[in-house]
Amino acid sequence: MRVVVPYAASEPKTRLADVLSPDERSAFADAMLADVRDAVRATGREPEVLATAPVDADAPVTVDDRALTDAVNAVLADAASANEAVAVVMADLALATPDALSRLFETDADLAIAPGRGGGTNALVVRHPEFRVDYHGTSFLDHLEIARSVGAEVEVVDSHRLATDVDERADLTEVLIHADGASFEWLQSAGFALASDESRVGVVRE
Amino acid sequence: MRVVVPYAASEPKTRLADVLSPDERSAFADAMLADVRDAVRATGREPEVLATAPVDADAPVTVDDRALTDAVNAVLADAASANEAVAVVMADLALATPDALSRLFETDADLAIAPGRGGGTNALVVRHPEFRVDYHGTSFLDHLEIARSVGAEVEVVDSHRLATDVDERADLTEVLIHADGASFEWLQSAGFALASDESRVGVVRE
Repeated sequence: MRVVVPYAASEPKTRLADVLSPDERSAFADAMLADVRDAVRATGREPEVLATAPVDADAPVTVDDRALTDAVNAVLADAASANEAVAVVMADLALATPDALSRLFETDADLAIAPGRGGGTNALVVRHPEFRVDYHGTSFLDHLEIARSVGAEVEVVDSHRLATDVDERADLTEVLIHADGASFEWLQSAGFALASDESRVGVVRE
Repeated sequence: MRVVVPYAASEPKTRLADVLSPDERSAFADAMLADVRDAVRATGREPEVLATAPVDADAPVTVDDRALTDAVNAVLADAASANEAVAVVMADLALATPDALSRLFETDADLAIAPGRGGGTNALVVRHPEFRVDYHGTSFLDHLEIARSVGAEVEVVDSHRLATDVDERADLTEVLIHADGASFEWLQSAGFALASDESRVGVVRE
């Protein structure tokens, strides 16, 4: 099984602009990519980075500057002709662990899918030659529908770790609570810490 | 094993005040409680409601008007003296399924815990006589620390469904995407539907 990690190399994580400068967003995105790469490796598999531009990633990098959906579908088409399974794991899953990824990787389903909070698709494994992705909009529901249309059996993987893509300030809270890798360390060294108010725990930057 | 579902009977779900009237919040909280009750029953266990005031709940109801922590700790003390395990499952887990709850219920750990998004504790199973809860603040981390202090072995249950307590408008999105019970139907009949913008999917009320 191939494990592909798509990575937006230029101007990543724009929705963190309220708390991080452009250079910081790049550094934090790199740290998250490193965590995802390490978690994939700890499952015994070798990640491939699918980047929009050349990156220094300590893993094989394929550059494809097309939109995410087109770039991933090119990989799926290649793999289908080689009769090979493909996992696609987003690069901002800073909470991903080998256990959580193994639950995704080790099903027998034609499509194993880990929804992201808000209706996205954070990770999936494709074992059906006709399945293609469409990351626009509520992609989790769209992917269920696409699977139905090609007759692919689906298993949904229920994981908070895989559901947590780190896009916004509130997501940093999850990294500080549940992660301990490069992303966690980057946030700590940048001065982020947990802060409680009456209702829910958030982050402060010191 | 006892399965206790704490329920705040008066003025529930105040953080949904921007989208629901007080009566609507009560009705929606009732629907979520019914979904949690049904999911617990489908695991083969009988839920008990631990309410702050009398409620009509189609399950045994114990009324305890103390704060959540004190009311739950009274249950834990009772159960410890009877050498009985206790599960505590929050009443606003509208995405809970029998599968997700079974993963929590069926560990051998002294403490099985399902973190909520934002550092809360959405569900736990206590099999250690000295463990007590403290729901204030980042209760997930506090509960890990309390477990350590009494020598209780911990298993963390990684579930998006159990991590999703429905407190805020954004959480309604998760109900519309992943649930199909009374809460989902209540939201639909109240006019809520999924709506996409460029970044993440949210809800609109029609």
